[in-house]
Parts: sequence; C-alpha cells; structure tokens
Amino acid sequence: MDLKQELKKRADFFNQSLEKFLNHGEPETLYDAVRHLPLAGGKRLRPCLAMVSCETVSRNIQEVMPLAIAIELIHNFTLVHDDIMDKSKLRRKIPSVHIKFGEPTAIIAGDLLFIKAFEAMHDIQGDLSIFKNVEFGLIDSVREISEGQQLDMDFEKRQNVTEDEYLGMILKKTAVLFMYAAEAGAILGGGTSEQSNALNEYGKSLGLGFQIHDDYLDMSSDEKTLGKDIGNDIRNGKKTLIAVHCLNNASGDDKKLLEKLFGNKNASEEEVKQVYNLFNNLKSVEYAKNTAMGYCEKAKKSLEILPNSDAKQILLELAEYSIRREK
Amino acid sequence: MDLKQELKKRADFFNQSLEKFLNHGEPETLYDAVRHLPLAGGKRLRPCLAMVSCETVSRNIQEVMPLAIAIELIHNFTLVHDDIMDKSKLRRKIPSVHIKFGEPTAIIAGDLLFIKAFEAMHDIQGDLSIFKNVEFGLIDSVREISEGQQLDMDFEKRQNVTEDEYLGMILKKTAVLFMYAAEAGAILGGGTSEQSNALNEYGKSLGLGFQIHDDYLDMSSDEKTLGKDIGNDIRNGKKTLIAVHCLNNASGDDKKLLEKLFGNKNASEEEVKQVYNLFNNLKSVEYAKNTAMGYCEKAKKSLEILPNSDAKQILLELAEYSIRREK
Repeated sequence: MDLKQELKKRADFFNQSLEKFLNHGEPETLYDAVRHLPLAGGKRLRPCLAMVSCETVSRNIQEVMPLAIAIELIHNFTLVHDDIMDKSKLRRKIPSVHIKFGEPTAIIAGDLLFIKAFEAMHDIQGDLSIFKNVEFGLIDSVREISEGQQLDMDFEKRQNVTEDEYLGMILKKTAVLFMYAAEAGAILGGGTSEQSNALNEYGKSLGLGFQIHDDYLDMSSDEKTLGKDIGNDIRNGKKTLIAVHCLNNASGDDKKLLEKLFGNKNASEEEVKQVYNLFNNLKSVEYAKNTAMGYCEKAKKSLEILPNSDAKQILLELAEYSIRREK
Repeated sequence: MDLKQELKKRADFFNQSLEKFLNHGEPETLYDAVRHLPLAGGKRLRPCLAMVSCETVSRNIQEVMPLAIAIELIHNFTLVHDDIMDKSKLRRKIPSVHIKFGEPTAIIAGDLLFIKAFEAMHDIQGDLSIFKNVEFGLIDSVREISEGQQLDMDFEKRQNVTEDEYLGMILKKTAVLFMYAAEAGAILGGGTSEQSNALNEYGKSLGLGFQIHDDYLDMSSDEKTLGKDIGNDIRNGKKTLIAVHCLNNASGDDKKLLEKLFGNKNASEEEVKQVYNLFNNLKSVEYAKNTAMGYCEKAKKSLEILPNSDAKQILLELAEYSIRREK
C-alpha cells in the first residue's frame, strides 16, 4: 500500500467538496480572505482521518463529508487567528491571511470559517440525536482548542512547566481535533461505541505523537540550517517537549545558562546555539523522539479491536508516518 | 406599565442564568477575559427580546433561556472582536477586553464566547427538528453579522454609499440578531409560523430603528459636548445614515467641502465642526430621526396579528423606547 497515494486520493475527493462548499459570497473583500487559506492546499490530514475512520466501519464515505469539511474549516479558523496572535507572516508558503488582507478582515475571516464549519455540520443526514451528539463533540473540541492555545501562550511566560502540563496543553491544542475526527468519523459510519472509542484513543495518540514530532522537526535541523524558527522559539521561551525536558533535567551551570538565555528576547545567535546544543547534550531531542515513537505504538495498538481492512492499514501506516515525516 | 422595570425584571432573571452558565474554567487567564464583558452588565436588550417574544405566545419562559444566553454571548463575542478591529478602548465604561487582557487573549476570548453560545443552544429541550432549525437560524445570523461588519469597514473606504447599501449593511450588522431573537423566541414558545414571522418583522424594524437612532444620538450632541466620537466618525468617513444622506444631497460648495473633509484623517477640530454643521443644515440629522421613527411605527404594526397581552405591550413600548432613548 502506498500511504501517500491513498491519502492523496481522499484529499483530492475532499478538496472537490470543500471548493464547492466554500463558494463565493458578498462582500468579496471578506470571502476572498475566507477562501485564501483553506483553498491553498495542505495535507488535509484531519478530514482524511475522519474519512478513513468512517471507512473502517462503513462502505459509504459520502455521509462523513460534511464532518470532514467542518473539521478542516475549524482547523483553518484556528490557524488564521493563531497567525494573528503569533504575528506569523507565512502559512503553507503563502502570506498569512492578516498579512494579505489586514488584521481586522483576518479576524472576521476566522470567525466566518468558524461559523461555516457549523453550517457544514447541518448537512449531516440521518438520525437527529446522532447529529446533535456529534455536533456537541465539535463544540467541545473547539472549546478545548481555545483553552490549549491560551495555555501555550501562558507557558511561554512561565519559567517551569512539567511534562504533564505540556502534554495536557498539546492534548487540547492539537490532539483533541484528531480524536474528534477519528471518533466522529466512526460514529457517522455507524460504528459501535467500542469502535468509536478505540478510534478516539487512536486519534489521541496520533495527535500527541504528531505534535511532539513537530517539535522535534523544528529542533532537529543541523547547525547549517539552524533556522529563524528555532531562534524565535528559544528567544520566546516556547515550551516544547524538548525544552520542557531540558529545563527539568538541567543542573549546575547548564541550569544557569538556560535560566539566562531561554526565553531571553535579546539572546544572540551564539547564545541561541548554546541553548540548542544543550537540548542535544542533555538528550532532550532524543527523549522527544522516543516519546513520539511511544505514542505511535500506542496509536497502532488502539486499532487492535477493528477488523482488518484497507482503511485500518492506512491508519496503521499513518501512525508511522506521523512520527517519521520530514516536514 | 413601567417599561424599564419590566425589562429590568427580565434582565435580572437573565443575569442569574448567565452568571451560572459562564462559570469559571481553566486556564483562568482565559476565563477571566471571557467573563469580563458579558458579566459587566449592559441593557440585555437582545435576550429580553427573546424572552418577551416567547411570552407573547407562551407562559413558560424557562424554555427560552438557553436561546437568550446564546444570543447575548454571540452579541458579546462580536463586541470583543469589533473592539479589537476598531481599537476601541472602552466598552460599558470599563476597559475593553483587548486593553485589559491583551489582543491575543481577546481574540481567543471572543472565540470562546462564540463557542459557548452554541454550547448554550444544546440546552434547548424538546423536539430535535425544532432545535436543529433554531440552531441553523443562529448560524445564519452569525454569518450575516460577520458580513455586515466587513461591509461597515468597506464603506469607510468608499466615497459614496447609497441609502439602500447602508440599510443592507445595518440589517446584517445589527438588525439580524434582533430578528433572530424575536423569531426564535416565538418558535421555542410554540408560536405559529404566522406569529414567529410577525415577530421576525418586528425585530427587523426594531433593529433598523435602533441602529439609526444610535447614529442620531452620536451626532445630536450640541456644540459644547461635540465629543471625540463624532470627530472620529467624521475623520474615519463612517457611513452613518446621516453621513450617507448628506453625501447624497450636498451640491456645489457643500459637496466640495464634504469631499475634502469627510473621511480626512487630518481634519482639524474646526473642519470637523464644519462637516457637523452641514449634517444639520442639509437636514440629514432630522432625516435620520424621521427614518428611525418610521421603523418604530412599522415595528408596532407588525405586532397587530398578536393577541393583546402584557408581553405585547412591552414590545410596543420597546419600539418607542428604541428611538427615544438618550443613551
């Protein structure tokens, strides 16, 4: 099985539905901004997860498309607002929405993507009590994502964050939407609660591993390519698992160096490099990599109760991919 | 009947429900920002409208409380985000959310108020198809409010806006939520579609009159109290009905003066006063006042099909109040 090809097949199908759903509206000044990011591509990992999860228990993928659209729109809404908060200028290799359309329009565009997600949910067919439950799950997920984003910002200002606190934060900020996509996909496919719970667990481990691998990717470039992002993350005191591990395991001079330089907006290139080297020397980068691998194994184990199928195989390989991808 | 007392009775009851619903959560840094504006008081006009509308057709007001909460939270979410866009520093006489908690947290707090509104909707009891319809109405309203806010910003940059365009903008930005509150209140009270349609019409005229009266209030201060807001609105080229009427009716030197000074960020105090005087001399202020009065009459007329009741009397007096209030 070629995972990339299987995902692309579904992403292409999804993109057609999304393009159709995100039609133009008035005023154009707003809808151009609304369409900018979601129609600029991306891996479509979350909608694909909802689709494949549905396939593990059902033959009819059509029923899950409104959910897949809603999940991708929620993801894009959070990106549009996060980019304003983080002052990020690029996203998917194009100018972020607030850079291209200005901050006021970007705030509204995010709000509109948010509401369009709930509009999409209303296309879900069938039993109304299932609709209500699945919609409430999305509401709950968005609440947790917002809480996670605030925690992420709060942690930057704190000197110490425990590993449990870090995991709680990325659970909300990232994993919750993976959990929801996998679980709700199965529910709409008519899966049993045992199946949808298993897929929720899968989504949780997948999301945690995915986010930790993201941290790892950002920090694992060699010195030559030690980029702007690493410098920014170190100067902002961003609490990745690598940083959290390092802060909690450093002692003596190492600890003093971290206290002085990590989260220091004025750290020089040379000082950033010192912190970066410490991350490696205290095996914090390695620790993060191993932790991500642990979640990959856990994700795969969650699927044991599902009957074998092509869809299940995709999920197994997706777990591997999420911690091995290079971008 | 004492309208203020009747509204206060309902606002107090509403405030208890809202306080209970908007309980604390984690992280506190976020929930303090979330609670800041909605628990700072306000007239509670929109939730009261939903409650009284329900009362015109039903004895049981309890059924409409989740809707009333949702509507007030949506209103507050738009205020929090609008204040960021407009760089407004005060709201309800206290610092706006982004001033007190910073812009990133204010963006998330707005998002959380948004999602809490939909969480509240899920407390609606009874028939699921009614729930789904009423919830879709809220979704549609939020979309229109977002479009209206963008139109408002777009109009500031344009030299000419027709009266119809202006009315279309305030219909979306302001009246839609009044329409929704009145209509959905009646639906949840078990009203007929004739009744809920009549209340929708009432909400439309009430909302349009309310917004035009707002414009009028801002512009009707005498020279002594000619405040900062009037200056800002004139310098920003804000398209109120007064400005739109004046721009479309000025000719000769008056037109040239407007073209030079209206929307001119560098206009002096003296020049602002010249524009202000023109608004009065061309009877644009009077025109707006008369237009608002016309909507008040239309609102009252919409209620003719409803049986007489205390609730209907409140709505009749509310229409009068909305165009006579002094703040």
